[in-house]
Amino acid sequence: MQSYTIELLAKIREKAPLIHNITNFVVMNSSANILLATGASPVMAHCLAEMEEMTSLADALVLNVGTLQEDWLESMICAAKTANSRGIPVILDPVGAGATTFRTEAIQKILQHCSVSVLRGNCSEVFSIGSSAIKTKGVDSSLSFSDQMVATAKAMALEKKCILAISGEEDCITDGAKTYRVRNGQPIMTKVTGIGCGLSAVTAAFCAVAEGKLVEATAAAFGFYGLCGDLAVKVSDKPGSFQVAFIDALYSTGAEDIMRSLKVTEV
Amino acid sequence: MQSYTIELLAKIREKAPLIHNITNFVVMNSSANILLATGASPVMAHCLAEMEEMTSLADALVLNVGTLQEDWLESMICAAKTANSRGIPVILDPVGAGATTFRTEAIQKILQHCSVSVLRGNCSEVFSIGSSAIKTKGVDSSLSFSDQMVATAKAMALEKKCILAISGEEDCITDGAKTYRVRNGQPIMTKVTGIGCGLSAVTAAFCAVAEGKLVEATAAAFGFYGLCGDLAVKVSDKPGSFQVAFIDALYSTGAEDIMRSLKVTEV
Amino acid sequence: MQSYTIELLAKIREKAPLIHNITNFVVMNSSANILLATGASPVMAHCLAEMEEMTSLADALVLNVGTLQEDWLESMICAAKTANSRGIPVILDPVGAGATTFRTEAIQKILQHCSVSVLRGNCSEVFSIGSSAIKTKGVDSSLSFSDQMVATAKAMALEKKCILAISGEEDCITDGAKTYRVRNGQPIMTKVTGIGCGLSAVTAAFCAVAEGKLVEATAAAFGFYGLCGDLAVKVSDKPGSFQVAFIDALYSTGAEDIMRSLKVTEV
Repeated sequence: MQSYTIELLAKIREKAPLIHNITNFVVMNSSANILLATGASPVMAHCLAEMEEMTSLADALVLNVGTLQEDWLESMICAAKTANSRGIPVILDPVGAGATTFRTEAIQKILQHCSVSVLRGNCSEVFSIGSSAIKTKGVDSSLSFSDQMVATAKAMALEKKCILAISGEEDCITDGAKTYRVRNGQPIMTKVTGIGCGLSAVTAAFCAVAEGKLVEATAAAFGFYGLCGDLAVKVSDKPGSFQVAFIDALYSTGAEDIMRSLKVTEV
Repeated sequence: MQSYTIELLAKIREKAPLIHNITNFVVMNSSANILLATGASPVMAHCLAEMEEMTSLADALVLNVGTLQEDWLESMICAAKTANSRGIPVILDPVGAGATTFRTEAIQKILQHCSVSVLRGNCSEVFSIGSSAIKTKGVDSSLSFSDQMVATAKAMALEKKCILAISGEEDCITDGAKTYRVRNGQPIMTKVTGIGCGLSAVTAAFCAVAEGKLVEATAAAFGFYGLCGDLAVKVSDKPGSFQVAFIDALYSTGAEDIMRSLKVTEV
Repeated sequence: MQSYTIELLAKIREKAPLIHNITNFVVMNSSANILLATGASPVMAHCLAEMEEMTSLADALVLNVGTLQEDWLESMICAAKTANSRGIPVILDPVGAGATTFRTEAIQKILQHCSVSVLRGNCSEVFSIGSSAIKTKGVDSSLSFSDQMVATAKAMALEKKCILAISGEEDCITDGAKTYRVRNGQPIMTKVTGIGCGLSAVTAAFCAVAEGKLVEATAAAFGFYGLCGDLAVKVSDKPGSFQVAFIDALYSTGAEDIMRSLKVTEV
């Protein structure tokens, strides 16, 4: 996985894929900076009047339902249909799924009307989509990596026909056939807003240059992102200066770091 | 006040109260990071379709009228009514009150239809609500701590049946009966956008764990917040690096710092 | 140009001109911090119900069409008309012009209905307004400083009756009669979101105190801003810590730095 991660990262930095984000107000700025530091080109746009044209310029699409409102949902579905017709990856971040009926139904609607490549969230968010049994409180995660979790994720990935990419203390990425476990990443990453949402954006950047090998690209994105957290926490373990160091790490982490410290394994 | 501040801060860090923010676009990211660094859990949501459910999950509510638009006002009132019916604290930040008729009337409407626990702003914003005589120019403060100011604030707190929490070179917190003066805080804090709005959010976090002792909790929040500014300015007195140091300080300031340097007195 | 830049910067820091921004969601926070660090007072507001009153308080107006939606366009035109009637400068940042029909037409509509003082963007954005031949891909620049570029810019400035301020590796500012070339600035500035939009805001601050000498003030703003980038890159050449150092530089750069290192020449 090291070599493949290095290859994809090099492609991002060379080609600067354009990532169209329809994302929440809280993280628009941080997601843009995270994409720029990684090497991709971000564009944030949500107005229905320009959706088709904007998504037509993009190499991947990110849909993020934080701070959602009704008219944005319509734009998301329009953009996703355009992405589907062009065959570019669609990453859906179900922020706060399960917290309110409006969010849960919005996500269901997107999944019904469009083909989503990767569903990226924490465990409770992702599972609340498949099972109404799990109610999330806000956007915090509450479940951890285990055999049972992997089994549930694989079943749900096959049912939903998309990759599940579940963030947690250890991450789980699966399309039902192949499954990866990622042990990079740091707890302090949950103390900075937008770090999770930024991972959805970086996953889009990796998928944009992956030529269809999306489950591998998603695992590579998670490994790279967590590794940047591992490197940044050595600079600072406090959230303000950690965030700065994390952006720096996304920009400067290279082949050597990845060869030495990437912790992504197929399970 | 030192011991009580330490007690409330410990409760925030232990319980991570969920703070529902309906706040302006400029500060959504910074308020979320400020709450996370302090130890609380932020959620930003404004869509009427999910207001009742979202506020029902929360431990406190923040309403902030910066970058206000009409449909958000409706959501604010719905959220505040839900908060009132559940008995959780409501903090209102009247950004730019007095600057335009639209803002002033929006604030009046909130105060008419809902019970606000704490009104947190600078002197000109807060007083422009009670008296049309004071016109603010944008969002800057123009009045300072004095006997006359305290007297006006006490009268207005009794009239409005809420705590007034007035930020300035020295802060004044009063419910009409008890009044606190806070001498922590630094001028550089006015050179970083969202620091004032962040204080409204941190006030909500302190009130969320205060079991009804809201005037004391508000004074504690102001003291803690200003103290973090005092500590951060020792790291840097320039606004970019000050902001980073301030977030770090919110995360790491503890009992010892509070015992040594909190400057909150009842007057 | 050094002395004039120093003079305008001193006026900004003394008078703190109020800059009314109707700008995109991505950069609201960073533009506010950039203005505060420079010495100006930012206000972000977009609701039609308060436009006339808000612009009436301001010393300059910034219109930025990133993340545009239809109702905001109406507010922009209302604010610009108010600014025109009061004779305060209007800076238009045509983010993503040429990328979608919606953006291009929105910009045309603003230019038709209002008088714009300064059009500030990268080369492809600015030229896409005058010529449909140049299609931008997202918001990246693709053209560089040359005799041909200057000639095109001068012709377009005369035609549009406004100052063109074109950001690039070297910047070009012209009203058709006077033309300035700015060689301050660093490539890393394109790796932080909102740095370009922030320049539009700082241009507004310089124009606000320029008493009508807008082409000189715009050149001074560009020189000062690029110089702050030159100073910040000495602190860090990675985007996270560069951004922090850049804000610090906007706050602390003074007469000596400007005398020594400003690279603005009339061509």
